[in-house]
Amino acid sequence: MIGAIDIGGTKIALALATPEGRLVAHDRFPTDPGRGPTAVIDEMIVTLRCLADKHGAVLTTIGVGSVGPLDLATGTIMSPPNFPGWKHVPLKLPLEAAFKVPVVIDNDANAAALGEYRLGAGKGARCMVYATLSTGIGGGVVIGGKLLHGVGGGAGEFGHQTIVPDGPACGCGNHGCFEAVASGTAIARRARILAEAGQAPLMLALAGGEPAALHAGHVAEAAAQGEATAMALWAETVEYLAIGLGNVISTLAPDRVVLGGGVAQVGDALLVPLREALARRVRMVPMDQVQVVLAAHGHETGLYGAVALALEHARPHA
Amino acid sequence: MIGAIDIGGTKIALALATPEGRLVAHDRFPTDPGRGPTAVIDEMIVTLRCLADKHGAVLTTIGVGSVGPLDLATGTIMSPPNFPGWKHVPLKLPLEAAFKVPVVIDNDANAAALGEYRLGAGKGARCMVYATLSTGIGGGVVIGGKLLHGVGGGAGEFGHQTIVPDGPACGCGNHGCFEAVASGTAIARRARILAEAGQAPLMLALAGGEPAALHAGHVAEAAAQGEATAMALWAETVEYLAIGLGNVISTLAPDRVVLGGGVAQVGDALLVPLREALARRVRMVPMDQVQVVLAAHGHETGLYGAVALALEHARPHA
Repeated sequence: MIGAIDIGGTKIALALATPEGRLVAHDRFPTDPGRGPTAVIDEMIVTLRCLADKHGAVLTTIGVGSVGPLDLATGTIMSPPNFPGWKHVPLKLPLEAAFKVPVVIDNDANAAALGEYRLGAGKGARCMVYATLSTGIGGGVVIGGKLLHGVGGGAGEFGHQTIVPDGPACGCGNHGCFEAVASGTAIARRARILAEAGQAPLMLALAGGEPAALHAGHVAEAAAQGEATAMALWAETVEYLAIGLGNVISTLAPDRVVLGGGVAQVGDALLVPLREALARRVRMVPMDQVQVVLAAHGHETGLYGAVALALEHARPHA
Repeated sequence: MIGAIDIGGTKIALALATPEGRLVAHDRFPTDPGRGPTAVIDEMIVTLRCLADKHGAVLTTIGVGSVGPLDLATGTIMSPPNFPGWKHVPLKLPLEAAFKVPVVIDNDANAAALGEYRLGAGKGARCMVYATLSTGIGGGVVIGGKLLHGVGGGAGEFGHQTIVPDGPACGCGNHGCFEAVASGTAIARRARILAEAGQAPLMLALAGGEPAALHAGHVAEAAAQGEATAMALWAETVEYLAIGLGNVISTLAPDRVVLGGGVAQVGDALLVPLREALARRVRMVPMDQVQVVLAAHGHETGLYGAVALALEHARPHA
């Protein structure tokens, strides 16, 4: 049986999977990184061991997708933002010591990309781009069945390409990044400003009257119901998404683009106008040969990613 | 001996090369596409045959880098802009019939990328991005020693990524493309406007007083000599180049970026400020691990590219 661990900023999800990549059991607990790495990693080990014991599973490999930055060579978590006091925390070592099986680690976006490629919406693609449209925008690139890592593991960081030269500051230090104008956080911020100015009563009502609760889904829904300000905001959002994703398409000409993360859960209200905008923006790559689809695993993209990493270890070419 | 053909919009260059990729002889003639494909291809065959005869060379393979779009599967030139009356012109077929050797064809940017990878400034790179900064902006991507083609052969079309959402119209049909704001043509156009308004007398003098003769080199030189308007224009140009190339770096995290084309011939006056601007724009890929260098073959990048294509054919994995 395969052990899978998905380490996020707010929760850590764990699962057991068959050698074919089917999840058979899972569990989760809050990350609460403030209590320090030792406590968190100990809880990870105990939880996975309990899960295995409960199901009489003998683990053969463990896959881990984790918030980065990571040092992949040593399997170390470097210093993630919002993880105060975490500096160069060994992750592979304590897991291998505890379970005596190989542990394969990669960052969460790469893991998710591989998970969708092996077990989800990316199956069979020759060149697949995975983009997670969430609080931030991250991604991974799989070419010829292999994850592209690049120097410093930086491949797939297209969330930090510049798409508005004089745009707003981004957490990375640049300004006008794709993520700074098109992430779930950026969409929610603009929606909140509209709502608090009393300019989008329908959108605000859809969020239960709570400006702080607004997300991309409310914007798309209010736009679909015809609220003009919401329609303009949604159109602007789709345009930014088409620019950012379109730029990646113009560089790689992938045959598949898989969209995950909270913003992608909006579904057709995103996909339909996005495909139209991409066809307008991308003229040198035949867009009729680029499938733009939703991730297959929704909220479990991270866990399937961890499973895929473990499966990769068993493959002869890995 | 290897035959190499570089088909451009204005001229066609031909060469003989050793199996190690060293050019031993070359010739060229104006393309003059208006006379029709048959005349052009006939002249190509005659010229290459003369060259071979003159040097007592027995050709083993022919590599061809050509203006696109191409149908790579059949070795056909589709309908290049500025080639009136050229529609689905077979290229591989007549060359193979004339010389009875294998003919390997790819578009000029891909050929140049492979040429720099195998025989020039890209040697040894794990992931190399080649960008030609010329009248347009084209490119090619070599990963793990292989050209990335992508759907429709569209990989490397990052000249048509959007970097200014409301920017000027581009020939491709989109607006705000990298090429539309940062190509040699775009730089020259802005320089000409300044010069004709009498705002850049030094820059104009460097171009012999001819606004139509202005190119990137004059802008860089006037900027180096301290002309304020030229400095502002050059700074803007470098910023656009950093955004466009930086976006590709954020997606691929390549270990090598090779710059060719006329604008790159400016040399250090481009490279030094470009590297600074890239370090400001690209925060998620360790730029100290990304070498940004000039193409090794200058004006002969296309011919070396054609040689590299022919060499590829001889490689066991090709």
